[in-house]
Amino acid sequence: MASPVTVSVDAMGGDNAPNVVIEGTRLALEADPDLRVLLCGSEEVIAPLCQDTDRCIAVPTTQVISMAEHPAEAVRKKKDSSIVRGCTLVREGEAQGFFSAGSTGACLTAATLIMGRAKGVKRPALGVIIPAYDRPVFLMDVGANADCKADYLAQFAQMGTIYMQSVLGVDAPRVGLLNIGEEDTKGSSFALEAYAALKAHVPGFAGNCEGGDLVAGAFDVVVTDGFTGNICLKTIEGTSKLIFKHLKGALTSSLSAKMGALLVKGSLSELKAELDPDRYGGSPLLGVKGTCIVGHGSSNAQAIKNGILAGCAQVREGVSQKVAEAFAPLKPAAEGE
Amino acid sequence: MASPVTVSVDAMGGDNAPNVVIEGTRLALEADPDLRVLLCGSEEVIAPLCQDTDRCIAVPTTQVISMAEHPAEAVRKKKDSSIVRGCTLVREGEAQGFFSAGSTGACLTAATLIMGRAKGVKRPALGVIIPAYDRPVFLMDVGANADCKADYLAQFAQMGTIYMQSVLGVDAPRVGLLNIGEEDTKGSSFALEAYAALKAHVPGFAGNCEGGDLVAGAFDVVVTDGFTGNICLKTIEGTSKLIFKHLKGALTSSLSAKMGALLVKGSLSELKAELDPDRYGGSPLLGVKGTCIVGHGSSNAQAIKNGILAGCAQVREGVSQKVAEAFAPLKPAAEGE
Repeated sequence: MASPVTVSVDAMGGDNAPNVVIEGTRLALEADPDLRVLLCGSEEVIAPLCQDTDRCIAVPTTQVISMAEHPAEAVRKKKDSSIVRGCTLVREGEAQGFFSAGSTGACLTAATLIMGRAKGVKRPALGVIIPAYDRPVFLMDVGANADCKADYLAQFAQMGTIYMQSVLGVDAPRVGLLNIGEEDTKGSSFALEAYAALKAHVPGFAGNCEGGDLVAGAFDVVVTDGFTGNICLKTIEGTSKLIFKHLKGALTSSLSAKMGALLVKGSLSELKAELDPDRYGGSPLLGVKGTCIVGHGSSNAQAIKNGILAGCAQVREGVSQKVAEAFAPLKPAAEGE
Repeated sequence: MASPVTVSVDAMGGDNAPNVVIEGTRLALEADPDLRVLLCGSEEVIAPLCQDTDRCIAVPTTQVISMAEHPAEAVRKKKDSSIVRGCTLVREGEAQGFFSAGSTGACLTAATLIMGRAKGVKRPALGVIIPAYDRPVFLMDVGANADCKADYLAQFAQMGTIYMQSVLGVDAPRVGLLNIGEEDTKGSSFALEAYAALKAHVPGFAGNCEGGDLVAGAFDVVVTDGFTGNICLKTIEGTSKLIFKHLKGALTSSLSAKMGALLVKGSLSELKAELDPDRYGGSPLLGVKGTCIVGHGSSNAQAIKNGILAGCAQVREGVSQKVAEAFAPLKPAAEGE
């Protein structure tokens, strides 16, 4: 039996909320008998699932933060929103983790302000698992910090290393710096500084990772600033979407292609599922006091389920405690690992 | 009849040089009867093709700059290298364009130092055509300037606009700024500055372009700094390679898939060719006095041919003259278009 975990879930967040979120939560509760969910959302939305199982507890809220709102402003003003309430439950110890597929900006702001930064962590950052060639790769930061200092990246590397060791069981993660050349003399002035910081503070640092190496799976953890990381992530998603769109066209372009398409359909669906970022269900925000997982706005029920279960795994592996210990004050970051 | 063009070609550059370069040059000469090539390379390598046709003139050189060498140092020291000689022929007016699939860094350095920057251009930059969903997109800078100032990006936009209008016949190119959100308040502090510069100086500026929008073809010209652009380009190439690799696996995973694969093979090859960056044959370095096209190191003969022909097109359309006129001194850049 796994240890019991309580996760607060934002029922109102995501392009297809609340229906897919409710459905995804139901799937997560079915998959993990030791999971309890505090479901935050408007009363009529959350009532049915909460009536069905006593492992889903209703937390009625009256406000919703939309994707279009200014994150900091919305978090400040909407105290009774599902995102703010969900994060507050973690701060108060009612839940250990929070999951939302809503506004990424609002989730990051709420988690950072309400749960608080772990002591010694300069900037919490958003990571994501990229399904690379023969293994998952953890890319960080993918958007929490558009402007970074070089030493933040050393911390991202340390947090990413803890995540990959704890949640994905990678023994000694190889850390790479996203850069535009393999040699240590290559890159922008920021990348050169980051290289030096990584070399000094991260035992697993294995050098520069070019854009193409990232998806080839040459490293386990790849760090970059939130601007480059976000562009990189969206470029991977966009390119993948583009190719499958083209593929669909190619497979209906002639009679023989159509016949062949029927035969390869199963293999292609499997491939699409394998490359689907939703498989890993959401991005962890590391460096806050608690677990916070942000799902893709376009998440389907399966992705919601995976996101909630990823939150459980992170709680059970004690990732946020390990991060807190690694960065505990009075110990330089280099020795904190 | 097209106007006659002379292009100097580096026979020694590229992973598969000199054979594929010689073969690609032969194909280019066959395709364009008004093309003359000054073939720079070691005597025994270039002699056969030069004996075959009087439109290929031998320029024997004794040195080669390898991919591993430090670009600036190599260009300074190896005066009789194929890259330095090729660029010198353009400066001396013997050729109008230069093509190489060798060290990108050495080509950029040689072209900038030897041909010289066009007056008013702050930084020459490397562009590349991305085969996006339903149209080609010009991404710039993809690696000439790892560190950029915001106003460079406005110039990249102006140069990219000229290129797309002249070479690809796009009437009024829509210019996007690669960024991490659509709203004008999104992005790093650098991106916010660049947004302001583009808004002030680029009539075709149409807003921010996220990583996924780039390959979706939402814009005709997308500008960014050379660090982000290079990572973005390599990420697209890497993701595409990864998916086709997986695809190959998926199509041989079962008997029915194998049978289907035979039927879809033709369509898939067409698709791969369509998405192949080599289709457009190399990246133009814009902002120097002359035409300089840098091919992918892994170029095959077809890519070499396309790169040389892309150089011809650029010469015939007078791109470098148009750029020079646009940035002529005593005219602010904004009015120079």
